[in-house]
Formats: sequence, C-alpha cells, structure tokens
Amino acid sequence: MKKNAFYAQSGGVTSVINATAAAVILESKKYKSKIGKVYAGKNGILGALREDLIDTSKEKVSAIRNLRETPGGIFGSCRFKLKSLKENKKEYTRLVDVFKAHDIGYFFYNGGNDSADTAFKVSQISNEMGYPINCIAIPKTVDNDLAVTDNCPGFGSAAKYIATSIMEASLDVASMAETSTKVFILEVMGRHAGWMAAAGSLARVDKNDAPHIILFPEIVFDEKKFLMQIKKIVKDNGYCVIVASEGVKNKKGKFLAESDRKDAFGHSQLGGVAPFLSNLINKKLKLKNHWAVSDYLQRSARHIASKTDLAQAEAVGTYAVKYAVKGMNGVMPVIKRGSGKKYSWKIEPASLSKIANVEKKLPKSYISKDGFDVTKKAIDYLRPLILGEAFPKFSNGIPASNKLKLQMVKKKLKSWNI
Amino acid sequence: MKKNAFYAQSGGVTSVINATAAAVILESKKYKSKIGKVYAGKNGILGALREDLIDTSKEKVSAIRNLRETPGGIFGSCRFKLKSLKENKKEYTRLVDVFKAHDIGYFFYNGGNDSADTAFKVSQISNEMGYPINCIAIPKTVDNDLAVTDNCPGFGSAAKYIATSIMEASLDVASMAETSTKVFILEVMGRHAGWMAAAGSLARVDKNDAPHIILFPEIVFDEKKFLMQIKKIVKDNGYCVIVASEGVKNKKGKFLAESDRKDAFGHSQLGGVAPFLSNLINKKLKLKNHWAVSDYLQRSARHIASKTDLAQAEAVGTYAVKYAVKGMNGVMPVIKRGSGKKYSWKIEPASLSKIANVEKKLPKSYISKDGFDVTKKAIDYLRPLILGEAFPKFSNGIPASNKLKLQMVKKKLKSWNI
Repeated sequence: MKKNAFYAQSGGVTSVINATAAAVILESKKYKSKIGKVYAGKNGILGALREDLIDTSKEKVSAIRNLRETPGGIFGSCRFKLKSLKENKKEYTRLVDVFKAHDIGYFFYNGGNDSADTAFKVSQISNEMGYPINCIAIPKTVDNDLAVTDNCPGFGSAAKYIATSIMEASLDVASMAETSTKVFILEVMGRHAGWMAAAGSLARVDKNDAPHIILFPEIVFDEKKFLMQIKKIVKDNGYCVIVASEGVKNKKGKFLAESDRKDAFGHSQLGGVAPFLSNLINKKLKLKNHWAVSDYLQRSARHIASKTDLAQAEAVGTYAVKYAVKGMNGVMPVIKRGSGKKYSWKIEPASLSKIANVEKKLPKSYISKDGFDVTKKAIDYLRPLILGEAFPKFSNGIPASNKLKLQMVKKKLKSWNI
Repeated sequence: MKKNAFYAQSGGVTSVINATAAAVILESKKYKSKIGKVYAGKNGILGALREDLIDTSKEKVSAIRNLRETPGGIFGSCRFKLKSLKENKKEYTRLVDVFKAHDIGYFFYNGGNDSADTAFKVSQISNEMGYPINCIAIPKTVDNDLAVTDNCPGFGSAAKYIATSIMEASLDVASMAETSTKVFILEVMGRHAGWMAAAGSLARVDKNDAPHIILFPEIVFDEKKFLMQIKKIVKDNGYCVIVASEGVKNKKGKFLAESDRKDAFGHSQLGGVAPFLSNLINKKLKLKNHWAVSDYLQRSARHIASKTDLAQAEAVGTYAVKYAVKGMNGVMPVIKRGSGKKYSWKIEPASLSKIANVEKKLPKSYISKDGFDVTKKAIDYLRPLILGEAFPKFSNGIPASNKLKLQMVKKKLKSWNI
C-alpha cells in the first residue's frame, strides 16, 4: 500500500543535516510502490501541526543532491517538544488529522534527544490511536550525546572545525607570545556533555602542542588549580591555549557563564565562558589573553565538514527509509563501530525507548586524571570521526548557494493555533 | 658583493604571512652571487636586536615550500616599535653591530603600519649611520589598512573566512528563527578600519541574504536606529544577521567594548562588541539572539584561504627580493589593481615614507547612506580578493603540520637587554 512520507528537522541544526534530508528524499524514490511523495515539515513538528508541508517532489533531483553541501536546516527546524499523549491529546489528534488528510504513513524525524522523544511519542500513535504510522527518528546533533549510537551525525564535522581552528589559532598565538598574547581561549558548544571540548585535543600532533587545557562540563571548575596550570604552562611553553565548554560549572553546580535567558525547551541559554575566563586571567594572572566564541560557526561550518561524518549523515537517512518500508516503527538507525583496529562502521536499528531523553556524557575513562585533558582512549574514539575532507563547491569565493523552491502543499484542514 | 639577508615578521600575523616568508627565502636562492644566507629574526625586530637569528639554510626546500600552507608566523612575531634614531640611537647602533657581525646587507620586514614605520627607520641607517643596507618592507595585515597598496596580503583570506562563516551561520539562524534564535551577531576584527566588517557583505547571493546589518568603526553607533533596524528586519525577514567590527564607537568616541587593557603598542585591546550588542538586544527588544567572536580564528584560517590572497602574499615576497638585489632601499612592494573590467593585479615598488603610520580607512563611497551596509562599489573592490580556494593538505583529519628545525645562528656579540 502506497503512502506519503513526512520528514522534518528538529533542534539545533548541523552542517550535514541537509545531507540526511537529501538521503531520505532520494532513497524514498527507490520504493515507488510503497512511498508516494515526501513532504517536508516546515519548522519541524510544527509543520505537521500547522499543516505546513513542503512538497519535495517539486524540486529537481540535482537540487536535492546539492543539499549535501548546504549547512543549516533547509526546511526550517524548531525547538518544540510534544507533551505526552495523556497530557495533550489534542496535539496527537491534530497530527492524525494531518496525516490522514495527506495520506502520510511514514514519519521521519531528524534530531537529537528531545526530537527522539517527540518521535517516540509519535510512534505510539499506531497503537494508542489506531492510525498506522511507521515512525523513524534519525540521529543528528553536534553535541554527540545520543545514547546507543556510537556517535552522532553532525558531531564529526563540528569536531573537525574545532580541531582545525585550535590548531590554526595556536600557531598564531605561538608567534605572538613573546611580546603580546600569552593565553588564548576558545569557547565551544556542548551544554552538558564535553564531546566538542574533547575534540579540541585532535589539534595536537606533538605532545606539547595546543590545546594545553580543556575544560569539560563533566568536571567541576577549580579556579585555583586552573590558574596554577596556566601559569605553569606559560612558564614552560611560552603560551597556553585553552578549550572551554560552554557548559563548565562551578562547585555550586552553576554554569560559569549563566545567563537568565532560557530557550523554548526551558534550557538556560549559554555563551560567555570565554570572556569570563579571560577576565579571571586578567585579574589574577595579569597575562594578556585573547578569546573566541565560535557559537553557530562551529555547527554550520560545512566548508570544513568531515567526509566520514557526511557519509554517516547520508547513511542514517538512507537506512531510515529502508527501515520504514520494512514496516519498522519507533526505531532509530544508529551507527555501530566495528571492533577491528581499522575504523569501520555500519548502521543498525535501535529502539527509541532506549534513546529518547537519555544524555550520553563523556565517559570518565576519556578524561585525564587532572581533569584538564582527554585520554588516549578518547582520542582513539574521536580521531576517525573527523577523517577525510568533503569541501563543497565554491562560487564567487564563497560556498555555492543551493536554494530550493520550497513549494507548499495546498492545505486541506482548518488552521491550527498552538 | 654577496651579503646575507635578514627577514622578520611583525605585528599580528595572518594565514598567509608564512607564504611570503617562503617566497623571500626561495627567491633569494636565485641570486647566489648577491644573497648569501637568509637569517630569520626570532620574534621580529627583536631577533635582530637580540642577535636571535634563525638559519633558514638549514631547512629542507620542501619544508620551506610547505610554509605556504602554514598559518601563524613561523619565526615568531612581535609588537615592538623602534624609537626614532634621535630618541634611541643605541638601538640603531646595536642593529648595525648585528648586521656587521653577520654580514647582513638586506633587511626584509614583513608587517603592517607599525612595521612599515620600523622598516622606514631602518632604511635610514644607510645614510645616517653609513652602513649600507637595502631595506624592504613587505605588506601584511588582515586589517587591509595600509596606504598606497590596493589591498594587503592576509586580508583576502580573512575576508573569505568571514564571508563564508556569515553565509553558513545565517543558514543555521534561518532554520532556527521560527521558535528560537532571531538575531545572530558576528564580531570581526578591524580596530579602526571597517574592511573586515565590509567583507561580511560578500556572503550575500540574493538581495535579502545575510548579513542584514554591518557596523563599521567609521560610523558612529546610533543605538536607536540600530534597534529599529533590527526590529524591522526581524519582522520582514524572520531573522537578522549582524556583522559588527570590534572597533565600533559611540558618540563620545569610546569603543562600545572598551577594555582597560592595552597592548605593547599602547593600543586598547578590544573584544566584546558582540556580547555588548547581545545584551542590548535582550534588554531593549527581548529577541533571542546568539553571538560569535572569531578573534584569532579569522586571521589564522589557512584552511579557507583565498587563492588570490595567497598568490599576492607570495608575489610581494618575491618582489621584495627582486627590489633588494636591484639596490632599492626604503620601499615596499605594493599591489596595483589593473583598470580593466576583469580583475588583474601587478606588483610595484612604493616609498615607505608614504606608507609608514598611515591608516587607510574604508572610503565613504564604500558605505551605504544609512551606514548599515556597503555599496556596490565596495563589493566590486572586495569580491576579487576572496576568489579561488587553496586548501592545504590534510593529515589525520586536520591541516598537515609543517614544523621547521629553526636552528639558531651562533651568537658573536654580547647579549642585549632591552
């Protein structure tokens, strides 16, 4: 029985999430007897609730293919979490109405922890509300904090960006240190898990190379130890390069750079650990320092994407479709690492019940004893994820722009106000 | 008569200054009857004063060639300005002592405004102190603010980094805007001249593309107009992307993000316009926003260097040597743009007296009437400078590391304390 598919992007986007979108759309075309059109939700699950559906069949195949070179979420993303069926049945009834109106039998939701939760809830519609749907969550997050999967599409490219940036900036600091900047701080994302911070370690070729200090959200910030460490490194090495996670917390469990703003998921909105540390170093050590905050740059830097990451982003999209047409529901295609010495990986299905809302932090065995570095085990895990380059085409000196028509499907229902 | 050459790097480094160094060293090898060894000063002019000379003849030619892919200043840079001959003759006497001790007849100084001043002063040693020296300053600065030259090596690559970053990040913001981030701010370098900020405009393909607001140091910050502009753009476009120069000033002439720290040249050390603006937008407009500060990342991003910039960085190095062996003194090889429609350029010598300490700001005709954008004239000037890619070799997922032996020349004089 032929059904249409719904695909949407959710949560913070990555430099390769559109590669996953392209894979879903292109793979779907291979199952003409089972999948009709692929409708993309405008702004994630909101697109389904509002009946804001984009008809991807109106796009040229070449335009869809070019999505693999386009960062951001081409169909719009959202930070919006469905309540449970018990708490807000109205939302689910609406989803079923929209699915029915557009003959949707496949639901692909591309996101992180919160999105896996949404997908998990939608997957229950089949049993609880009697509307048959094959719901597949597709992994994506620069935070690399999804459970079960070995790693998350989007992370490898952000990690490559961070490692490359630290390597390049440290050569700059090294040359300035004699008469100017002695300390450089790069603030990276990763609210609760230090994967992105750990990736800074990949900048190192020789033992004394930058970064010299890594601050993880998993390790309580010890000001005294931190300052002593910098002092020692500047004395021995001439300069000190620090990678600091935005999620570093003090003894009281407060983010060093807590802001009182919250996002739509109720999470504190962070940013500002680097200037916080810079101030501290000025005051206590009087060492000239510079700092950078990459923020969105690190998760949208498609120009320095990891080829491995890109391939995995495409594979999870492809397998999501394969699982759906096999009739699976409530699963996620996850990345499984081979056990051999040479890095290898394959895709496997995993139940969403094990993934939704679980946060995978950096294991203790990945952090050095002093808490300022990673272990060899961490590097062995991380290194393969950034391997290979996948430069996009350039036009006029910048990455080529790949815009879509984004033609909306005609609405059939009354409008929906959240 | 064969003489040795001295080459040094000064001021803030760039992603392509080492390409210039490589060109100087390799071109020098072509004049075996005139140039002996090329000694690189460790940490700029300090290397000459301290007799800290690196013997570049000990390096493999392939290692020198690889410098074109290595950001930072491989020989160490400095922020150190010579006083005038009148004010501090001791320094000049010392330079002559070092030059004599090591038979140095060529002096190449690779830097910006302050460095052109140093080179200009050294060039006067010939006449004032009777020691014959051919002194050539070689342009380099991401600030693009040197006089006479059409543009400065290092700027094109920083500009390409900024344009690419804005383009990529804006796709991220666009996808988040519906339920999350509405405003994104990228702070860029350029203390007194808005060239780097202007480069953000190159991210645009279509009229409404990001960036939507550019803040220049040349334009007094008007808070009310700025906030109104953001409000309008968010209303019309859904989101607003801002590029802000670190050097933006208020009506009183104060940097928006003034810090009380100063560098060795006595310049205020900036950084923090982006968080300043973010706070303002939170308070006055209550719009969720994100901000990034690229700092050293933008001037060391060799991985996204402009091919045009790289070629020019090499050409000024090559021509510096050509001028020196011709017996020129007190000049700089500058870039001259051809007058045709198609972009072309060549290298010409220009007198340092016209360049030292002069700062070339963004011309008024390059800034739009409302002060928040550039004109077509600016884009016509800027675009060619970022054209072409020159990706470095990668190894293990990061740009290949190119380290030198950096073997010091045996000292012949007593040590020197500044």
